[in-house]
Amino acid sequence: MTDLLNFGKQILASQPFSALLGTELETFEPGKAVLTLAVRDELKQQHGFVHGGVVSYLADNALTYAGGSVLGDSVTSEYKINYARPALGEKLIARATVLSSGKKQAVCQCEVVALNNGEERTVAFAQGTISKVEPKA
Amino acid sequence: MTDLLNFGKQILASQPFSALLGTELETFEPGKAVLTLAVRDELKQQHGFVHGGVVSYLADNALTYAGGSVLGDSVTSEYKINYARPALGEKLIARATVLSSGKKQAVCQCEVVALNNGEERTVAFAQGTISKVEPKA
Amino acid sequence: MTDLLNFGKQILASQPFSALLGTELETFEPGKAVLTLAVRDELKQQHGFVHGGVVSYLADNALTYAGGSVLGDSVTSEYKINYARPALGEKLIARATVLSSGKKQAVCQCEVVALNNGEERTVAFAQGTISKVEPKA
Amino acid sequence: MTDLLNFGKQILASQPFSALLGTELETFEPGKAVLTLAVRDELKQQHGFVHGGVVSYLADNALTYAGGSVLGDSVTSEYKINYARPALGEKLIARATVLSSGKKQAVCQCEVVALNNGEERTVAFAQGTISKVEPKA
Repeated sequence: MTDLLNFGKQILASQPFSALLGTELETFEPGKAVLTLAVRDELKQQHGFVHGGVVSYLADNALTYAGGSVLGDSVTSEYKINYARPALGEKLIARATVLSSGKKQAVCQCEVVALNNGEERTVAFAQGTISKVEPKA
Repeated sequence: MTDLLNFGKQILASQPFSALLGTELETFEPGKAVLTLAVRDELKQQHGFVHGGVVSYLADNALTYAGGSVLGDSVTSEYKINYARPALGEKLIARATVLSSGKKQAVCQCEVVALNNGEERTVAFAQGTISKVEPKA
Repeated sequence: MTDLLNFGKQILASQPFSALLGTELETFEPGKAVLTLAVRDELKQQHGFVHGGVVSYLADNALTYAGGSVLGDSVTSEYKINYARPALGEKLIARATVLSSGKKQAVCQCEVVALNNGEERTVAFAQGTISKVEPKA
Repeated sequence: MTDLLNFGKQILASQPFSALLGTELETFEPGKAVLTLAVRDELKQQHGFVHGGVVSYLADNALTYAGGSVLGDSVTSEYKINYARPALGEKLIARATVLSSGKKQAVCQCEVVALNNGEERTVAFAQGTISKVEPKA
């Protein structure tokens, strides 16, 4: 495991909400991040699909990681998400990449897929702005 | 309690993820919905703020309720969210309204505020498209 | 006319593209901006409606003005727009306000209406991030 | 030239606003569209860059074409755009692709680059929803 991936895993482990959901960081390298989340009943909505808010959380977090991979300590300033289809399956995978980056901000995109019986289907696409957290003087 | 509010509360109660988080429906009337969420440590990120994914989930769900108040059974097709400041406090309140609606879709907006020692501060603004779920033939 | 409005009009006049389209600044005060645009055939698409790109341009520019009213010299970093209905009529009016602002950025929203035979109908809603342009050292 | 490309060019020619700006359709095939626009002074803002509204118009139109390539007669329902850097150069190129599509809607993305002395630099990224126009009964 690279130092960067290890560092990323530590940050994720320090997010109580990510621990509550069970998110895992699979890839974390310059310009790229992949988060995965095992689907369980608690994460669903009334029709048996994964709740959109879970999909959105995962995309948001993957965007932050992707941006953070080139900016350092970062937050998501804003993003938009298009839901392509209901999320059904045993696992969600959010793959985010940096589209463009400067010193203070990066524009990132993310695709969220659901793994259902070994087959991947895209469930959402996100795009947003990640901003470097400026250290306080 | 109105029938509509009661109906909305039943739907929320049938969402396992909303139950996991503890979301409550405070207002649900034509063109308007208000969701609240008591903040607890499990919902935070590594710096002690409410995780952005929680804010985003609440906005997304409030948008769906607002749209659903005029369309009937609905889903969020897409939305964008701008985080205005870190969410700190004891409670989140997401107030969503319908900006425009047709037969099949509504454009809705949402403001999320954090209640901190009795004072409200806006933490995020969202805007998105809510789509009516067509009954299957 | 206030000094601020006069200043805003000068900036608009110095934008060749805004001059090409015929945009006018009607209101420019702290936290608020209103742009108007007389509709003519050149601004339309193939079905006789105002081209979406014109609506979007006007929203984008109004967002920048709203943000600039509190930040100073500014640019639009990003925005999203929802088209509510086709734009038909003799005039477009874009009304933008600041939702939240810090030292470097503001989150703004904008409603675009079309004036058709004296009646206003909303044609689009936008929300975005306006960023202060940092003077070069 | 393919029939589809020829058809797309006819539509573009029938948009007065696109004719005013000088937009050209370079590629139009299932799932993909490329629009180009020669930069001239009339399309600029006060600092000598191409006006953001022009970049946004081009992205919007390319998104519509990409969606239309799989849906037929279509409109942009909504989109968001992130400006990556000021647009400088002699030509803009907007490349749009379909990320996901159903019977009535497609989610598309677009990258806008500026060609400056033969070198391409990305100036914006957009993502949005394209909706099929239902023929009237």
